[in-house]
Amino acid sequence: MLSNTPATIGTRIEDIDTPCLLIDLDAYERNLDRMAGFVNEQGLRHRAHAKTHKSADIAHDQLARGAVGVCCQKVSEAEALLHGGVRDLLVSNEVVNPHMIERLAAMATQARVLVCADDANNIDDLEAAAARYGATLEVLVEIDVGAGRCGVAPGAPAVPLAQKIDAAAHLRFAGLQAYQGKAQHVHDYHERKGKIDKAVAMVRDTVDRLADKGLRCDIIGGAGTGTYAFEGTSGIYNELQCGSYIFMDADYQRIAMDDGRLIDDFENSLFLYTTVMSKTKAEKAICDAGLKAQSVDSGPAVVFGRDDIEYVGASDEHGVISDPNNALKLGEKLKLVPGHCDPTVNIHDWYVGVRDGVVERVLPVTARGMCL
Amino acid sequence: MLSNTPATIGTRIEDIDTPCLLIDLDAYERNLDRMAGFVNEQGLRHRAHAKTHKSADIAHDQLARGAVGVCCQKVSEAEALLHGGVRDLLVSNEVVNPHMIERLAAMATQARVLVCADDANNIDDLEAAAARYGATLEVLVEIDVGAGRCGVAPGAPAVPLAQKIDAAAHLRFAGLQAYQGKAQHVHDYHERKGKIDKAVAMVRDTVDRLADKGLRCDIIGGAGTGTYAFEGTSGIYNELQCGSYIFMDADYQRIAMDDGRLIDDFENSLFLYTTVMSKTKAEKAICDAGLKAQSVDSGPAVVFGRDDIEYVGASDEHGVISDPNNALKLGEKLKLVPGHCDPTVNIHDWYVGVRDGVVERVLPVTARGMCL
Repeated sequence: MLSNTPATIGTRIEDIDTPCLLIDLDAYERNLDRMAGFVNEQGLRHRAHAKTHKSADIAHDQLARGAVGVCCQKVSEAEALLHGGVRDLLVSNEVVNPHMIERLAAMATQARVLVCADDANNIDDLEAAAARYGATLEVLVEIDVGAGRCGVAPGAPAVPLAQKIDAAAHLRFAGLQAYQGKAQHVHDYHERKGKIDKAVAMVRDTVDRLADKGLRCDIIGGAGTGTYAFEGTSGIYNELQCGSYIFMDADYQRIAMDDGRLIDDFENSLFLYTTVMSKTKAEKAICDAGLKAQSVDSGPAVVFGRDDIEYVGASDEHGVISDPNNALKLGEKLKLVPGHCDPTVNIHDWYVGVRDGVVERVLPVTARGMCL
Repeated sequence: MLSNTPATIGTRIEDIDTPCLLIDLDAYERNLDRMAGFVNEQGLRHRAHAKTHKSADIAHDQLARGAVGVCCQKVSEAEALLHGGVRDLLVSNEVVNPHMIERLAAMATQARVLVCADDANNIDDLEAAAARYGATLEVLVEIDVGAGRCGVAPGAPAVPLAQKIDAAAHLRFAGLQAYQGKAQHVHDYHERKGKIDKAVAMVRDTVDRLADKGLRCDIIGGAGTGTYAFEGTSGIYNELQCGSYIFMDADYQRIAMDDGRLIDDFENSLFLYTTVMSKTKAEKAICDAGLKAQSVDSGPAVVFGRDDIEYVGASDEHGVISDPNNALKLGEKLKLVPGHCDPTVNIHDWYVGVRDGVVERVLPVTARGMCL
C-alpha cells in the first residue's frame, strides 16, 4: 500500500493536498472534553465507539479522558485497534463467520474482548472457539430496543441466551447491548426522546427478568451522539457508546433540542477539504471531492462557513458547487462538512490535524476498510 | 496496513469471509473479450478506464486484450498503476494542486503521461513542472460536451488552449477529451443517444476549428459503458474510455436498448458477497454489508438470482433484507449486485476472483482510496 499522505507535520493549511479529511484539533479536543465531562458528572462509563474514527490515536485520546475501552463493529476493526495498543474491546455486533469467530477468540488471549450475541447456536460456536484458545470471551445479549436490526426481542427471549452464556465454561455473561440506532438521527426532540423512553422501559424489564434468574448485568450499554443525554440520565444504562460526537456531521446537526434550536452539544471538527479544480463557468465551480471522497447516504456535504455557495452534486471524482456570484477561483480550497461522518471516514487513509493554520498531527485511519 | 484478505487461493466460495468483493472470473473475462472485440471491429483504440477497478492486475488483463493504455482520474491513482507496471497513463481530469502537478511531471520521466486541461494558467503550471523534470507531458484540451462539469465550451474556446499547449516546449498537444458523463446512466435509449449525437456534433466542430489552425487531434477520447456504441460508430471519436463494462452494476443494468429491452452487452461479474448475521425476525434478515461496504448513491444493492428476497436498507455495518417467506438462515451467504460499481470498489482492499466455486485469484485494489 502506498503512503499517500496529503500533508506532513508543519504543512500550512493552504498547502494541504486534497481531497482529504481535516480535523480542527481545537474543536475536536473540546468535543472530547465535553463528553468526558458529561459521563463523569453522571457517574457513568464511556466505551467510545471506534466505528466512527477507526483510529488507534483517537481511541487513545478517548482513553486518556477516561473512556473504559472502545466499541468496534467488526472483528478486523478490533484487531487493528488491538495492534494499536487498545486492550479493552467490545465488538458491539454479532460475529457469525467461523473464521472471524476464530480471530475473535484469538484476540481474547491478548486483551479483554467482549462480543454480542442474539442466537443460541452462535453462543455454542463462541464457546467452542474460546475453549480452543483457552480464552474467555465476555458476551452481551443484544436486545432489539426498536432499531429493527440485530438482537432478540426484549424481555423473556433474552433470558435463555443469558443463561446459556452464563453456563458456558469459556464465556462470561457481561450484560445487555441495547442500542437504539434508529433514534439517533430523528430530528424532532420529542419523537427522538420517545424512542429512548421506550428503549429504557424494555431494558428495565429485561434486566428485571434476568435478575429474577440470578443474572446480573455488569454492562447495560447503548446510546449514540443523538440520544446520549436520554440514556445517560435514565438510571439504567451504565455504559455509553457514543462515536460521532468527536466529529459531528451535517445530518447530526439537523437534530433539534427541547427548545427547537439545533443541537449544539458538539462542534464540527471534521471536514472534507477540497480544491476548486475547474472554473470554466460563471455560475458554478467543480471541486475535487466527489463520491470517492464521501458517502452521500445522508445527503451531500455542506460548505462550512459560506452562505454564498452550495455543494449541489457529486459524481465519482467531482463535486459541483453552485456559485451564483461567481466568487470562487481556480485552486481555492474549501472545507466541507460531510453528510455522514462514519462511512466518509471509512474511505480515507489519513486524517490531517490542524491547529492555528498549521498541520500538527497526521493520523492514519488505522482500521480503514476493516469490514470483516 | 493490515493484510485483511477475505480468502486465499483455493478457498471454496462458501468459506470466503464477508463482506467482500467477488469477481465471477468467467463473466469478467467474457466482458473483457466483448469490448475488445467491438473496439477491434470498429478499428478504434481502447484506453480502458481504471477508475472503475483501480487494479494493476485488471489493467494488465485489458492491455493483454489490446487496450493501448489506461485512463485514471487522479495522479495518485496513476502512480499506483505505474508502480504496477502500466506505462501509458492518461489522467482524464484536470490537475491543479501544485504538489500534484509536480508528481504528475515526475511520472512522465518513467512513462507516457497524458493529462487534461481547461485553463490557460494551468497550462503554464504544467509546462513549468514538465520543464523542471526535463519531461514531456501530453495534454488534451477538455471540452464540456454536455456533462456540465469540467472542460471549456466546445468550439472556439478550445483553440487558444490547444495553441498554448502546442507552443509549450515541454508539452505536446494530444487532442480532445470529450466525455459525456451525464449520458451514461440515462435509461431511455433515444434520450441517451440524443445526448451523444449532440456531443459528436460539438466534437466535430471543435476538431474542424483546430484543423483550421493546423492543430491535429491524435486522440479524440471519451465514451463510457452506457454510450460506447454511439461514440464508437460516430466516425470521429477514436479512443474509447470505458470502465464499468468489466463489472456492470445495478444502475447500469437499468438502461434500455433501442428495442426497449434492458442492456445486455455485458454481464454482472462483480458482486458484494455478504452473510446473514442475524435472523431473529421471521420477515427479515440482517446481513453484514452496509454503508461501509458499498456506495448507495445510485440506489442500494440488488440480490443476485433471488426474486423472493430484497435488499431494502443499509446502515453503517448492516443491510436489511426483506424475507417474506422466512427463507433465509443465519450464516447463509448471498451475492449482491452493487448499485454503483466505481465508488463501491473504492471502499475495498481486495477482489476475490472465483471460478467453478473456488477462489482462483486474489487481487489487491491497487489504487484504492488514491484520491489525490
